Amino acid sequence: MITKSKITAELENILPKKNILSAVEECYVYSQDGTNDIKSDIIPDVVVFPESIEEVQSIMRFANEHKISVVARGAGTNLVGACITSRGGIVINFTKMDNILEINKTNMTARVQAGVVVGKLQEKVSEMGLFFPPDPSNLKVSTIGGAIAQSAGGPKTFKYGTTKDYVLGLKVVLADGTLMETGTNTIKNATGYHLEQLFIGSEGTLGIVVEATLKLIPKPETTQVVMAYFNSVEDATNSVTSMIDKNIYPSTIDFMNKNTLQTVEKFYPCGLLTNREAALIIEVDGFKISMETQIMRLETVLRLSGATDIIIANTSDEQERIWTGRRASFGATAKLRPDVVTNDMIVPRENISKLVSGINKICEKYSLIVSIVGHIGDGNIHPQIALDLNNDTEVKNYEHAKKEFYELTLQLGGTLSAEHGIGLEKKEYFTRAVDTVALEYMKKIKKMFDPNNILNPDKIFDVG
Amino acid sequence: MITKSKITAELENILPKKNILSAVEECYVYSQDGTNDIKSDIIPDVVVFPESIEEVQSIMRFANEHKISVVARGAGTNLVGACITSRGGIVINFTKMDNILEINKTNMTARVQAGVVVGKLQEKVSEMGLFFPPDPSNLKVSTIGGAIAQSAGGPKTFKYGTTKDYVLGLKVVLADGTLMETGTNTIKNATGYHLEQLFIGSEGTLGIVVEATLKLIPKPETTQVVMAYFNSVEDATNSVTSMIDKNIYPSTIDFMNKNTLQTVEKFYPCGLLTNREAALIIEVDGFKISMETQIMRLETVLRLSGATDIIIANTSDEQERIWTGRRASFGATAKLRPDVVTNDMIVPRENISKLVSGINKICEKYSLIVSIVGHIGDGNIHPQIALDLNNDTEVKNYEHAKKEFYELTLQLGGTLSAEHGIGLEKKEYFTRAVDTVALEYMKKIKKMFDPNNILNPDKIFDVG
Repeated sequence: MITKSKITAELENILPKKNILSAVEECYVYSQDGTNDIKSDIIPDVVVFPESIEEVQSIMRFANEHKISVVARGAGTNLVGACITSRGGIVINFTKMDNILEINKTNMTARVQAGVVVGKLQEKVSEMGLFFPPDPSNLKVSTIGGAIAQSAGGPKTFKYGTTKDYVLGLKVVLADGTLMETGTNTIKNATGYHLEQLFIGSEGTLGIVVEATLKLIPKPETTQVVMAYFNSVEDATNSVTSMIDKNIYPSTIDFMNKNTLQTVEKFYPCGLLTNREAALIIEVDGFKISMETQIMRLETVLRLSGATDIIIANTSDEQERIWTGRRASFGATAKLRPDVVTNDMIVPRENISKLVSGINKICEKYSLIVSIVGHIGDGNIHPQIALDLNNDTEVKNYEHAKKEFYELTLQLGGTLSAEHGIGLEKKEYFTRAVDTVALEYMKKIKKMFDPNNILNPDKIFDVG
Repeated sequence: MITKSKITAELENILPKKNILSAVEECYVYSQDGTNDIKSDIIPDVVVFPESIEEVQSIMRFANEHKISVVARGAGTNLVGACITSRGGIVINFTKMDNILEINKTNMTARVQAGVVVGKLQEKVSEMGLFFPPDPSNLKVSTIGGAIAQSAGGPKTFKYGTTKDYVLGLKVVLADGTLMETGTNTIKNATGYHLEQLFIGSEGTLGIVVEATLKLIPKPETTQVVMAYFNSVEDATNSVTSMIDKNIYPSTIDFMNKNTLQTVEKFYPCGLLTNREAALIIEVDGFKISMETQIMRLETVLRLSGATDIIIANTSDEQERIWTGRRASFGATAKLRPDVVTNDMIVPRENISKLVSGINKICEKYSLIVSIVGHIGDGNIHPQIALDLNNDTEVKNYEHAKKEFYELTLQLGGTLSAEHGIGLEKKEYFTRAVDTVALEYMKKIKKMFDPNNILNPDKIFDVG
């Protein structure tokens, strides 16, 4: 085993000293990520901040030679322990590789370094009349590299798909330091295997994405937001199918359950109706001239689906107010107990109400406080659970509850993660969620790309 | 080597006799596909028509044991020799596995067998208010399995993406007969590697897709078609960026050059203006109420971009008439000489006019008659070349021209195929179009899934 000081000394041959952290108190910060309920006491030996692809290649060549574990990191916002350094080693932080290299309006493509913040890219392309739809809730800090690694989605995936649908090509540094270019700069591509797609959602276990060519689309002229309350989750879910029947294709159909409404209203009063079972936030977009029709139809559909109250945001302030309530849900839930954790499951939409009621029952059984939000159009639910992570009983209860969440999700034809990933958090359940043959081939692919198992080891599945 | 009669006898233990063809005159039909300019005299030993996944598994177990080459085939419409049986062996024809297993309106998904005809699926989902956008021009006969294998697109990819964007999960029979289930039934998925994506565009070289779960979207309320003529290809191309500026997002932006207009008008007169350099067919969709605005804006944009003539189809008959001209282009070109071949290249949109003029120059140099059509929104061009495939000089000239087409395409930052694939046709140029490291990993992946190289051997690249 190579010593920490030797690792640092070697890395000093690759990067300027200012881009290397090795003091324990500095490295400690990078031992964790956004996942509250996994505490690791394994601290990376070194954290490096490369400024070029060549530096990343040199780091990987060195790491591979000495079989040192490497974790790539963007903003560290992920929620499944994907950035936790389970074996110490090197953390490669991409915050210094944050250049938007090109936004090409004619081609409707962008070329970006892995460390570019998603929200920054969205802003820049928006100024040019273009749109990059993936919008994970942490988009103001999270990076494109992270979005690719975790297969990030966001509220707008119902209409616009996830990160996967916007990646045309990737530059990837492989375990041995080789640079591989996958995909193309073109909108379509039927030239060989889509290797770029293998890296999306691979959580840094197959290679290190250093650059991405992304597809952009034209920006919709305008958006409008409607909020609707229901006396049952089922009514709320059924309304989505009725929308489709009327050719309404919302960009977003977000969901809050009763507990969420009550919790938000308790800590951040904004006029939410706290005695309803469900609320939907529906965003439609398109031409200004179509808005009246869309909203009128939406209102009819919602009424016929049993909506008790419908709020139409006529100004951007009113839109903002509606979204503020939804966004406050995590923070509000956090105020109920010392800590809060969030989870991510997806089922075919027909089973959403069963999933929501099941989660409520499981949380009741384990005395856990839960508020449930989600992107109901996709069938994607995020239970937010308030608990004390220093209380062993509560932690144990959450562990039991999680297991039952996942079992229920799989029973309902769904899968473990829609947009957060597997990481360490759900690894234990992964083998139950994927076909055994597919798992075998995932392992083979992992071994093919990373024979020494140095790339984010212990995440998603054990190489075995 | 196992004899043909032994292969047939063994297959008779797996399938009923009625589902096996072994007479040379019957098998001959399956030695070719839609590719006119590749003639193979290698005839498959046996053609089988399985009716279940289990039968496909048994066929593959037998073929793998005896290292017999296997080519999966849908309607055989592909244009790159991907279905040509370069080593004889077994052709698995999927026309008897053509059941739509489920269309779930609530979940907006369809589950289909590989042999389902794309157009039939489109029709069925359309009746339910849903939409499956991939629409290769052969959609009335071509199959979902083929669309997945060749990464098929179509005119609507500009707004709606290609087959790849609609595949959620696949059942794949691997080389050794094992059944692998990849992906999910859910709209989003961040649960491990996206193995399903590896098979899209793999041309049957990695495994045999037997079933697919597809994403559907709501059907747009209405569509309208506009045709515009230009005095230069550049003006036509530039108009696309101006559309984006006005928030116009056409579902289709198709292109015909002067030769095409003249050729169509010569054989199928429909009032096309034959003295213009370029024509665009633009289809917009959305709410009825937005159509007037969209069409008005489009008209303004087109005028400002230099359109000389604009035809707005106000009825479905008028829409149909415009599309008829475009669809007639292949048949019309075919009337100029005994044969016609079509090709498929894509460049970043900014380079479309360079590609078009380059193709014209190359064809002039080699005395080839060419009409150029394409999906200009994507940067995707299809030169259609009329020639006599029994005339050695013309064939040789086309071979030279193709080489120069591809060189030009790559110089312009594009790639060999947007939506037809590589097959045998472009294999020779494949290594120039992909990164050497990516190629090495494609080969490793091929070897991993198909160690005996029995799955559609000799296609895309040589295993080496």
